[in-house]
Amino acid sequence: MTKRGFASDNNAGIHPAILEAIAKVNEGHAVGYGDDPVTRQAVERFKQEFGDDIEVFFTFNGTGANVLSLASLTQSFNSIICADTAHIQVDECGAPEKLTGCKLITVPNRLGKIHPDDIKAHLHGFGFEHHAQPGVISISQVTELGTIYTVDEIKAIADLAHQHGLFVHLDGARIANAAAALNRPFRSFTRDAGVDVLSFGGTKNGMMMGEAVIFFNAEQATMTKYIRKQSMQLFSKMRFISAQFLAYFDDQLWKKNAEHANRMARLLEQEIAKVEGVTLTQKTQANGVFAIVPPAIIEPLQEQYFFYIWDESRSEVRWMTSFDTTEEDIYGFVNALKSLL
Amino acid sequence: MTKRGFASDNNAGIHPAILEAIAKVNEGHAVGYGDDPVTRQAVERFKQEFGDDIEVFFTFNGTGANVLSLASLTQSFNSIICADTAHIQVDECGAPEKLTGCKLITVPNRLGKIHPDDIKAHLHGFGFEHHAQPGVISISQVTELGTIYTVDEIKAIADLAHQHGLFVHLDGARIANAAAALNRPFRSFTRDAGVDVLSFGGTKNGMMMGEAVIFFNAEQATMTKYIRKQSMQLFSKMRFISAQFLAYFDDQLWKKNAEHANRMARLLEQEIAKVEGVTLTQKTQANGVFAIVPPAIIEPLQEQYFFYIWDESRSEVRWMTSFDTTEEDIYGFVNALKSLL
Amino acid sequence: MTKRGFASDNNAGIHPAILEAIAKVNEGHAVGYGDDPVTRQAVERFKQEFGDDIEVFFTFNGTGANVLSLASLTQSFNSIICADTAHIQVDECGAPEKLTGCKLITVPNRLGKIHPDDIKAHLHGFGFEHHAQPGVISISQVTELGTIYTVDEIKAIADLAHQHGLFVHLDGARIANAAAALNRPFRSFTRDAGVDVLSFGGTKNGMMMGEAVIFFNAEQATMTKYIRKQSMQLFSKMRFISAQFLAYFDDQLWKKNAEHANRMARLLEQEIAKVEGVTLTQKTQANGVFAIVPPAIIEPLQEQYFFYIWDESRSEVRWMTSFDTTEEDIYGFVNALKSLL
Amino acid sequence: MTKRGFASDNNAGIHPAILEAIAKVNEGHAVGYGDDPVTRQAVERFKQEFGDDIEVFFTFNGTGANVLSLASLTQSFNSIICADTAHIQVDECGAPEKLTGCKLITVPNRLGKIHPDDIKAHLHGFGFEHHAQPGVISISQVTELGTIYTVDEIKAIADLAHQHGLFVHLDGARIANAAAALNRPFRSFTRDAGVDVLSFGGTKNGMMMGEAVIFFNAEQATMTKYIRKQSMQLFSKMRFISAQFLAYFDDQLWKKNAEHANRMARLLEQEIAKVEGVTLTQKTQANGVFAIVPPAIIEPLQEQYFFYIWDESRSEVRWMTSFDTTEEDIYGFVNALKSLL
Repeated sequence: MTKRGFASDNNAGIHPAILEAIAKVNEGHAVGYGDDPVTRQAVERFKQEFGDDIEVFFTFNGTGANVLSLASLTQSFNSIICADTAHIQVDECGAPEKLTGCKLITVPNRLGKIHPDDIKAHLHGFGFEHHAQPGVISISQVTELGTIYTVDEIKAIADLAHQHGLFVHLDGARIANAAAALNRPFRSFTRDAGVDVLSFGGTKNGMMMGEAVIFFNAEQATMTKYIRKQSMQLFSKMRFISAQFLAYFDDQLWKKNAEHANRMARLLEQEIAKVEGVTLTQKTQANGVFAIVPPAIIEPLQEQYFFYIWDESRSEVRWMTSFDTTEEDIYGFVNALKSLL
Repeated sequence: MTKRGFASDNNAGIHPAILEAIAKVNEGHAVGYGDDPVTRQAVERFKQEFGDDIEVFFTFNGTGANVLSLASLTQSFNSIICADTAHIQVDECGAPEKLTGCKLITVPNRLGKIHPDDIKAHLHGFGFEHHAQPGVISISQVTELGTIYTVDEIKAIADLAHQHGLFVHLDGARIANAAAALNRPFRSFTRDAGVDVLSFGGTKNGMMMGEAVIFFNAEQATMTKYIRKQSMQLFSKMRFISAQFLAYFDDQLWKKNAEHANRMARLLEQEIAKVEGVTLTQKTQANGVFAIVPPAIIEPLQEQYFFYIWDESRSEVRWMTSFDTTEEDIYGFVNALKSLL
Repeated sequence: MTKRGFASDNNAGIHPAILEAIAKVNEGHAVGYGDDPVTRQAVERFKQEFGDDIEVFFTFNGTGANVLSLASLTQSFNSIICADTAHIQVDECGAPEKLTGCKLITVPNRLGKIHPDDIKAHLHGFGFEHHAQPGVISISQVTELGTIYTVDEIKAIADLAHQHGLFVHLDGARIANAAAALNRPFRSFTRDAGVDVLSFGGTKNGMMMGEAVIFFNAEQATMTKYIRKQSMQLFSKMRFISAQFLAYFDDQLWKKNAEHANRMARLLEQEIAKVEGVTLTQKTQANGVFAIVPPAIIEPLQEQYFFYIWDESRSEVRWMTSFDTTEEDIYGFVNALKSLL
Repeated sequence: MTKRGFASDNNAGIHPAILEAIAKVNEGHAVGYGDDPVTRQAVERFKQEFGDDIEVFFTFNGTGANVLSLASLTQSFNSIICADTAHIQVDECGAPEKLTGCKLITVPNRLGKIHPDDIKAHLHGFGFEHHAQPGVISISQVTELGTIYTVDEIKAIADLAHQHGLFVHLDGARIANAAAALNRPFRSFTRDAGVDVLSFGGTKNGMMMGEAVIFFNAEQATMTKYIRKQSMQLFSKMRFISAQFLAYFDDQLWKKNAEHANRMARLLEQEIAKVEGVTLTQKTQANGVFAIVPPAIIEPLQEQYFFYIWDESRSEVRWMTSFDTTEEDIYGFVNALKSLL
């Protein structure tokens, strides 16, 4: 399939610079499983971004990164608090429960985000053995609804978490889109805002595959290398993820890709706003546009440009843009939509 | 590191034709998670090899493929019988136990293989609830000691398994090296010999990454897609594994690579046989050479050509060749070894 | 402590007739783990109650019974839908997740019960591998809020479940109180209402310990004996649970106990209703009374009669009666409460 | 069944003094889950035996005690080293793997015991993430073959364990029989010999049910109360286990029971030694007698006195005595055996 749709940013391919980086490290042998110079460089690059004292572990995919993060922070009798829309809750087929044994406790989302007031209701039962012990608050940035936490919102959650002895995990599958939208360094809304462990995504923004789990406190990472292997997330030919990350940071490729995707989403939002019969359900902050459309047009439109229904009950759909979305794609799509209305 | 060592066939990089195949499918968008035409072609290709009625699931890595196989065949109260040298027993950090809940029962290996006579001792306690119920026999082909089961040996194990209601899993991380060495189709020593589920490896023979779990009976695969996702082995940009497999089968690339690696191993064996002070511990059947060397030379030799110690207690080392090993590598290595003796 | 409080019906001891039954079977040897005549009789007794074709498994405790039920009905990639107040959700320290690997999905309770309209929102994503597959709806009868489902309410949930291929589990830790309050046979609101698997409680109604997991369809119980052993719920000296159940059914002891506890709760409710400054939060249907009391009196009252705070945020407490609660206990307690106001 | 057989010491009932103790605490209410005065006394009693700084957790059964011990000492990527005859390996249906996620590694037993020389072969791979990290050595005292470790043998194992950073668990399902046979305090061959965590059994020596997990270092017990609840081993009416343990220690009931059982086993051994056609396979050290008998007599003998076949391949059977075995039982059994020969 050579057409660009709006189903997900992971329907896009590999950015040419990333592919080239893979090719470039493809000579000779490298010690497996990450004990190679390319991986060391990539880890170094993350340290420039987040500080020298971090611990970095690469994984194959986002679910792997999230589970590795959560498993490193918990015992099986802990609970993990997250939005009812969180990827770890609705899109990972129960991997967090299966791998960690923990209970996931959901908080009603407010446009994809969770709020300290709602979290507080679950911060009780500490020391009471009948109650799964609250262990982690997990938030997504960008959220699954395409919204973005402000730094202060994250700080408020982290403060609440730390006051009660919980850790904060941030699912950054689309962290580049957030950093681009906020026009702030990654560190400012993760480590500096009180996040303890970060799933740093690459796949959805132009990499072939690859995510990084970043610990801002080495104490929590002492068992992670074993958990990664036991969780089947240890890549033998690691240099081929590491090289991707190096290219991803070179010339701020991550930022260019994310800014482009975000811009395309805003363009799409702007064009959709003009279309009668379609209602945008929230302001676009990153690379996702959510809208309510007449049910009858969904299927014929999907045949031309693939995308997912978000909430069938109210005929809400999700359109994601990516690093390779073009203005032509947007206009073509909007025209197709219009002609179906 | 651009030097070629003998540590593992996964220290090699990507075969150029495989890399090219990745680049070739890197245009436009593809529906994620395997619902794309490239993946459908790749599955088709496996069906040509193994029969139309198989079920195929791609995974990121070998441990993932093994665990997905075993989890599909078992309930948590089953046991899995394997060699004491099996990768699932010694090299996966307990992933099979963690993910399946099953008990692994080891049988003493005979040059890497297991024998029905030894397995029989564990085929009891059926229906007795105190006893983990024997569920699967898992064998490796090529074995972890570089040896190869004959078709009849596999048949004997499969017959024994099926007589007692057990399944047979074959860990084929190096299945290409076995097929090349036996000069037989994959199917002849897997499906046709009674194997139920196969981990078909690509990573160790020239792919960037990618393994396939192949079910010869669709009944055992009804839950596999959920298990794969929950086990964090579902690749979003699946076409990039599928394209590799297509290239891997094109012009029998797998066979050329494997035959080359095997040939290099035989050359190494032959040259080593001439070296006084080094004892080959078994006949080379595929791409691994095992030898006892003076302990003092191990470290200096490793500095020049990286490899692993196999059995420290008797100073036995393992040398693996790969698709890109050259004759120069062999002679260079043997000379380095000689000059250290 | 020899005083009777209102903390929980499991703070009561053993009914004399039950203790006597334990003593009576305490002679000679019996084959362990349930293969004894007393256990066979007890199973027979359950068959009289629920039908000849059931499968019965005794466990040590209620959490064990619930987990055994759920584990028998699920694969790890399933989800289990329950009330946000369900015991399996809030009082089992995550045992269901840990043992089954499943995701628990909560539905807002309506006075302890769940309603089909709320459940429906979670009956989607079937066949979609990213989504934990809905597998079981679990309800409690009596609910954790002391309320009771009507037969029709249970039927409606069961119909909804079965239409979508889900199973229904009923947590009957206080099933006797429900049967007594409804004045109906156990079977009428379990098996006959569409329940698939039942945790039948004994501990909270006069037994020393002991619960029964009852399968109304033998197909779902084929693996249960192994799961029970692997879940550490198989009692070696089984006859001592079985004998308790026999006594429990003799002369409808279960009913006398439950009716008494229910009556005491109604008396308590009636007396509390007269007390100014205390607000009953719901009608008493079984053996629990819930009320909002002035925060300041909670601790001094607990010192005299132990009980638990139910919802600290609104100063709601829970008072449970049991088979051995006396009218004197009630009046003494109400007087103590009054004198503190 | 009122006959006394030789199947297992858990086929016996409850010692009258234990049953009386249950009855004695059966008045009034007690706070549930162990926060009651009887339980406090019982814990105190264990402290007299093992030291003031221990942590004690009661469980329902032996598998529960073993798993709680092991789960408290491990992370899922650890391995647990034990005899190939260990109860945790062969008689718990994989509960340790399922609950801890760990790999069990077996060492060939030497008459039921394991030897440091054999253990050493598995003490490698520390820090190597592919390898399940050795975490615990678990031994049984009395062993499953009825043999007893000397204090020095346990010390040697504990020293080896601690040198490598492993913990030592002792499965004391029959610890009373060992203490009686050794005529030494429990402490001398557990805590003082270097054991870290002990499963202290009561069920097999006259209790209705009940085991204690004892930590000699409180640091390893900080999470145990949650693990116990999540493992479904927390008894609501705890006082009824605690009271049993109090009676068990009163007047050294445990010792009288164990000495009697041991004496009966020696008598049986002595009488069997005189029978031609039956071969004792090892010296009786506690309350188990192992012998090879003609296959043809097993079934008819079992019909009169139930017992288990130990090793079908060589027609070896196991006969266990218990606190209530009488001399008449022994002579009756030996006569029955003789008349079948």
